[in-house]
Amino acid sequence: MTDEILDRATFDQATFDQAIFDRASAAAVVMARSSGADRAGWLRAVADALDADVADLVAIADRETHLGVARLTGEVARTSGQLRLFASVVDEGSYLEATIDHPVPTATPPRPDLRRMLRPLGPVAVFAASNFPFAFSVAGGDTASALAVGSPVIVKAHPGHPELSRRTAGLVEKALLAAGAPAGAFALVEGYEAGIALVQHPAIAAVAFTGSVTGGRALHDLAAARPAPIPFYGELGSINPVVVTRQADAERGSTLATGLFGSVTLGMGQFCTKPGIVFVPTDSALEAQLGALESSTVDAVLTESMLTESIAAGFTAGAERLLDIPGVRPVLGSVSGPLVVTTPVDTFDAHADELLTEVFGPATVLVRYDTDAQLLAALDRLEGTLTATLHAGDSERVPAVLERLEQIAGRVLFAGWPTGVAVTWAQHHGGPWPSTTSQFTSVGATAVRRFLRPIAYQDAPAAALPPALRDENPLGIPRRVDGILATRD
Amino acid sequence: MTDEILDRATFDQATFDQAIFDRASAAAVVMARSSGADRAGWLRAVADALDADVADLVAIADRETHLGVARLTGEVARTSGQLRLFASVVDEGSYLEATIDHPVPTATPPRPDLRRMLRPLGPVAVFAASNFPFAFSVAGGDTASALAVGSPVIVKAHPGHPELSRRTAGLVEKALLAAGAPAGAFALVEGYEAGIALVQHPAIAAVAFTGSVTGGRALHDLAAARPAPIPFYGELGSINPVVVTRQADAERGSTLATGLFGSVTLGMGQFCTKPGIVFVPTDSALEAQLGALESSTVDAVLTESMLTESIAAGFTAGAERLLDIPGVRPVLGSVSGPLVVTTPVDTFDAHADELLTEVFGPATVLVRYDTDAQLLAALDRLEGTLTATLHAGDSERVPAVLERLEQIAGRVLFAGWPTGVAVTWAQHHGGPWPSTTSQFTSVGATAVRRFLRPIAYQDAPAAALPPALRDENPLGIPRRVDGILATRD
Repeated sequence: MTDEILDRATFDQATFDQAIFDRASAAAVVMARSSGADRAGWLRAVADALDADVADLVAIADRETHLGVARLTGEVARTSGQLRLFASVVDEGSYLEATIDHPVPTATPPRPDLRRMLRPLGPVAVFAASNFPFAFSVAGGDTASALAVGSPVIVKAHPGHPELSRRTAGLVEKALLAAGAPAGAFALVEGYEAGIALVQHPAIAAVAFTGSVTGGRALHDLAAARPAPIPFYGELGSINPVVVTRQADAERGSTLATGLFGSVTLGMGQFCTKPGIVFVPTDSALEAQLGALESSTVDAVLTESMLTESIAAGFTAGAERLLDIPGVRPVLGSVSGPLVVTTPVDTFDAHADELLTEVFGPATVLVRYDTDAQLLAALDRLEGTLTATLHAGDSERVPAVLERLEQIAGRVLFAGWPTGVAVTWAQHHGGPWPSTTSQFTSVGATAVRRFLRPIAYQDAPAAALPPALRDENPLGIPRRVDGILATRD
Repeated sequence: MTDEILDRATFDQATFDQAIFDRASAAAVVMARSSGADRAGWLRAVADALDADVADLVAIADRETHLGVARLTGEVARTSGQLRLFASVVDEGSYLEATIDHPVPTATPPRPDLRRMLRPLGPVAVFAASNFPFAFSVAGGDTASALAVGSPVIVKAHPGHPELSRRTAGLVEKALLAAGAPAGAFALVEGYEAGIALVQHPAIAAVAFTGSVTGGRALHDLAAARPAPIPFYGELGSINPVVVTRQADAERGSTLATGLFGSVTLGMGQFCTKPGIVFVPTDSALEAQLGALESSTVDAVLTESMLTESIAAGFTAGAERLLDIPGVRPVLGSVSGPLVVTTPVDTFDAHADELLTEVFGPATVLVRYDTDAQLLAALDRLEGTLTATLHAGDSERVPAVLERLEQIAGRVLFAGWPTGVAVTWAQHHGGPWPSTTSQFTSVGATAVRRFLRPIAYQDAPAAALPPALRDENPLGIPRRVDGILATRD
């Protein structure tokens, strides 16, 4: 999301040493034995601690991020809600994928008793993001989903909000210990070198990262180059294309303009789901209406309120690069505030790489097409993206467009805007590279799958089995028994 | 499994060019639209074609692999059975993880309608193995699981059985086309350079590989270094440790010796689940009984019947390396037949890396321990492995041993032998690196998850939704609706 993840803060050897990994490894053994009820209790204790301290936390966060009290207060609620959602995921239990195949002694060869479930992967390194100082930071979704399944967490703090990171870490650590989690279940480290050491240390079993493509690629490559490679879960950049059909533009182009402007400028455009490219018909009402927006509306969005000075400077540089492309002209705004530019589809063809480079902040590019063939050819140029949005006319069907959006995106939206990510069972926040490593999500119930691996027990005596796999189903969880999925048995 | 995967056959440009990828990409679009019923039909057609030609196929396979008519005939049945299992997995439908969250307009912010399911990842490169010319080759589990979910397959043939590969590919292609699959759903390529080109080509979305750690590591690194990295699913080497407690040895050491010899020499030891290291108490009945085996039993296992001459030569070299380690002495056999060696735990401490290097073929190492502490310390030296086996005494509990075995293995066996892998819902054939990339399996129902990625639809009109996500559940599959898992609704 930002380009500051791999910052160059001083490596603090005093607070970052082998002891952190030893504690995490020891905690992993204890946590692997813990019950789901234990872990749900830990998560709820952390959620309660955040909620209890919301005023103080928001004050620190606002000072460090400029995101505003209202947004930040909402984000604390989202973060504690997320912790409680993962607690309920653990309670429900189907995330374990418990599967029992009873023996078939008469088969050729005789089939043994086999029982499979998911077990914790081991200590996880979590790289916090700048743009969600709560929901994607120290106590965010990555931390919650790893703890939920019994994997210890070592968070690499984002340097954009150091005081908040330390304060949150203190709350998390205290709440976990008080709720009975082992020491070593959670730790915080700071600085560039500490981050590198995390990814390379043999005790670490997975990396979860939210940040820029550049930083994420570097860590991905480190994780892949280890003697024992580990999974790298990157939530990286995303262009979030929007397609507006001619019919949709005719029916509601002016409403779409307002909606698009709101989505592009929400939170100063500092969302990984900000729409970065919008395909509109030539001479669209949408573009005309954007150009006619009140200057007071436009001027209310100024880069000085971005997360950090370097993010603001990065935005200005990116906006200038857009305006330097031949054929691109501004529709509204400037490089120091929101910016909407427009370009014919021919320019897009010639400069796709530059136009598809994410500008982190309140900027978007309108690409004007004349024919459906031009639109489809342009869509074929897109890479993986978190979201893709379709605005079609009432009861208009555009299967060829939809098929292309499904191929590149993890979430396909109809008649909406991609900013705003509900944390629910059906949410998926991921897409083909470079938006994420595409098979997993960092948001919602299934985020826990990233920190689990299957294990099968063959002919195990009941006493050696984890409770989830015992015949009597002591946890009362959904299981597949002899091929049949049963919600209770 | 073997060291010949990255063979140096001549790259055949005439049969391997961009057209193969273009056909696969075009097929991927058609297959993404196909119904589960369609794909189940394709798999059953391939299964029927294999069964119908079993005699011819086995004759070719026996000539090329020396595995024998009985074993190969059984393997064809396993392979067609596997295809039919995946057809039933598709029919059952819960592999789609269909999830529906209805909208909550009264929430703050209002919650949209969200519907999530798994969709095919795209064309898959499958690297065939030498040691299962049917079950892990052209029409094996990787091919079946990819086709099952709608991902086209390009198989890189193993050079150990070229004629069988071509013959099988012809059958598969013909059966798929006759059953209505698109041209391009399946292709076969041969040669080292063709394999490299597969992993690097932008049209390929994932790689499934069964073979040596060396070959697998090379392909893993290529997949990770792509401009857009793709998942690499390696089924690599495995040491498959066995622990025999003093009590188990006292109760049934002599029976265990016979069982171990059978497992080590089954199929000339050419299984990735062959037990490669066995921890036994000093002065064990097991070791004594192995040393006393009839020479006729031992001599029946000769390297001349291994898969290829180079595999036989590799076995002899590996066996010689074992015997060269100071402190290691033979218990039975020789470098040209089965070989069991024994060594005290001190030698293991000093030479763990060499003793833990897989020798592909009928060899295993007994490590003699005196105390539980020595055993536990030795287990802490083990790396990831497909299987780990515990032989304990009747009603003996050894939780500290079990905990260590769970940490390193994907399948933990009690009182059995790891060779023989039942293809069922609860099977897991994978373990921490270097045995596999640990979160997935290449055997059994969940192997399909490797070739799928989630996609969420937000506020989609019913007509734009895949059938699996429509309210009326036209497929009648298990789904999670508003958080509740329902086997039918």
